[in-house]
Amino acid sequence: MTGVTLDRDQCLALDAADPLRKFKDEFVLPEGVIYLVGNSLGAPPRRAAERLRRTVEDEWGRHLVGGWNHAGWYEQPLAAGDRIAPLIGAGPGQVVVGNSTSIAVFQAVAAALKLRPERRVIVSDTRNFPTDHYMVQGLASLLGGYELRDLSEGFDGAAVVLLSEVDYRTGARQDVPAVTAEAHAAGALIVWDLCHSVGAMEVDVSGADFAVGCTYKYLNAGPGAPAFLYVHPRHQAAAENVLSGWYGHAEPFAFETGYRPAEGVRRFAVSTPHVLSFAALEAALDVWERVPMAQVRAKSMALGELFVELVGDRLELASPADPAARGSQVSLRHPDGYPVMRALIDRGVHGDFRAPDVLRFGFAPLYIGYADVYDAATTLLDVLDKELWRDDRYTTRLAVT
Amino acid sequence: MTGVTLDRDQCLALDAADPLRKFKDEFVLPEGVIYLVGNSLGAPPRRAAERLRRTVEDEWGRHLVGGWNHAGWYEQPLAAGDRIAPLIGAGPGQVVVGNSTSIAVFQAVAAALKLRPERRVIVSDTRNFPTDHYMVQGLASLLGGYELRDLSEGFDGAAVVLLSEVDYRTGARQDVPAVTAEAHAAGALIVWDLCHSVGAMEVDVSGADFAVGCTYKYLNAGPGAPAFLYVHPRHQAAAENVLSGWYGHAEPFAFETGYRPAEGVRRFAVSTPHVLSFAALEAALDVWERVPMAQVRAKSMALGELFVELVGDRLELASPADPAARGSQVSLRHPDGYPVMRALIDRGVHGDFRAPDVLRFGFAPLYIGYADVYDAATTLLDVLDKELWRDDRYTTRLAVT
Repeated sequence: MTGVTLDRDQCLALDAADPLRKFKDEFVLPEGVIYLVGNSLGAPPRRAAERLRRTVEDEWGRHLVGGWNHAGWYEQPLAAGDRIAPLIGAGPGQVVVGNSTSIAVFQAVAAALKLRPERRVIVSDTRNFPTDHYMVQGLASLLGGYELRDLSEGFDGAAVVLLSEVDYRTGARQDVPAVTAEAHAAGALIVWDLCHSVGAMEVDVSGADFAVGCTYKYLNAGPGAPAFLYVHPRHQAAAENVLSGWYGHAEPFAFETGYRPAEGVRRFAVSTPHVLSFAALEAALDVWERVPMAQVRAKSMALGELFVELVGDRLELASPADPAARGSQVSLRHPDGYPVMRALIDRGVHGDFRAPDVLRFGFAPLYIGYADVYDAATTLLDVLDKELWRDDRYTTRLAVT
Repeated sequence: MTGVTLDRDQCLALDAADPLRKFKDEFVLPEGVIYLVGNSLGAPPRRAAERLRRTVEDEWGRHLVGGWNHAGWYEQPLAAGDRIAPLIGAGPGQVVVGNSTSIAVFQAVAAALKLRPERRVIVSDTRNFPTDHYMVQGLASLLGGYELRDLSEGFDGAAVVLLSEVDYRTGARQDVPAVTAEAHAAGALIVWDLCHSVGAMEVDVSGADFAVGCTYKYLNAGPGAPAFLYVHPRHQAAAENVLSGWYGHAEPFAFETGYRPAEGVRRFAVSTPHVLSFAALEAALDVWERVPMAQVRAKSMALGELFVELVGDRLELASPADPAARGSQVSLRHPDGYPVMRALIDRGVHGDFRAPDVLRFGFAPLYIGYADVYDAATTLLDVLDKELWRDDRYTTRLAVT
């Protein structure tokens, strides 16, 4: 971007030349919708429905309980982990999939605390998604004797630091290698939450101790899809999974009374995988294995910058102005953000709202194009200029904002 | 049953008169398979595939992230809980669904320990499925200072007792109200694992403190389907969810930094529900709401008893001889149980094997009939009499037994 804002024809020309354009056909979106909420729930992969039908009818229906052996269900947590690994700079045998991000946060932080038994401080960051705090608060309350400290107070004396690569609210991006090095220099371990970066950019947690993330945002694996947990190889022999369920046992089918952890990252598997939810994840990963992530990041920055330029100074930017310092979302502030967003959605432009005043727009480069961004921005300006949001229909709060 | 074993025609006559016979059409089973593993993974409900298609295409595909409001996803953990409640003797607002049985065990036992802070003993039972032990071992290791004690040592001084209504290996059934009263008399709280009883019989945990269970066995909700957690109303105000994720927060969408538990059982929801896995659960519960459970139990006992009579003294019975003292499974012992079971499966009779020597046969009364049991038993006797299991094909161990 040059600072000279493009017109709609120029956007269409960029779409025509976009090397990622072919991926749009891999996803299903309703007619007339510009979907800028892929940072919250990704669009359905075109093959997800068929993949689920196959799992229900051909796998469960035909193999029944034999699906654990004959349909690959038993291996899902590690097999999916190995497919996610390249997306976060990890290698095979370093990522396990299952459960939820909240559970993975609990596992990672608890394991880190056991690796730093002489320290009693947990550092979190108000920019983390709230569930990260909540899980750490629950863990600290369970253990007793730990101090929860905000990132603003620094890393000194910290056993573990829990940070997010991309802020869910503003899209602000942290420098993972640099912050990891700072945490390590202070003697702390670090857990990265990748929920808002994985699938949106090249992620590299290979220097970090643990990482967690969800698969239903940019990765498009469906509502409530399983989460992932990365454990650095240097910790795999010593790290303990306090949620020591049978799926992480060295020999689950020996049915022993005593827990013996499996070798490697498998010990962080807790329980029987949610096979049907894994099916949609597999359909999504079939797409991701063909995606050049450098192109995703380049397009993501270009889309965000186009949006910012088109909106101009009409709304305050809650995100960093430098696209390299953002994830794949742009957040704007408006004191009546809730009805503004409802009015916008009513006109086919889907973003979301985060209290108290943030409008979020996510740009998933696999299915969002330049002309989409152009149309989204002009619709937003129209809603603002004509005050279309001043309508009682738009003020009633829904359960989920 | 009278002790006079039925012939096949008599079994067919019983099937023709069976009031539950109509439910067989609600499930899909492959031609030529007698499926006696419904105690491990239930058969697919006929409408599960369509229900999943609807969730992917009509809900996720049409509403996108709006599915949280417009497709009922947000309410799934409590809505499904209210539908499971009648199956376990609970009322509305007492059951929450999500995660896995292992996670639910951790939540329930941790909550019970916090309610009995003056006690330091956790009682478990070698008849529990191993993951129950493992989760308690992980919890105790995390907390420090707790003693794990076997049920054989009694309830004295116990903070919490973790028992299973039906033993996964032998099918032996415990008397829930009587054992609950004993635990309470000793000042302990009790957590019941209902994995092997829910959907197989009338369950009543209304006197217990907590209960957990899975939905993929007799309830037929699919591989790795979400688990449930029951919390007695008398504990709901004080019980803490140590896995305090955002879904159990009083106002998840206020995005507060501090955790404030929701009122009631909702606080035990941890994280974003696995929506696709819930879809199959909902298809299964559509069947269960029409099932008369007293008829299920009566038929279940009759099927088990028929099987035991047909097998006679050919194999040692690992289950209690009294059908009222069993769940809906019959377990037999054979020193070469593994190849015997493989040979049986090869002949269309599906049971499973549990080390070291147990053959398990589950009788799910909604889709198993008297003639099925007759054919299963005669095939088993044939495999034994002709030593058909002495074949190298049957000794190779699969990953999942």
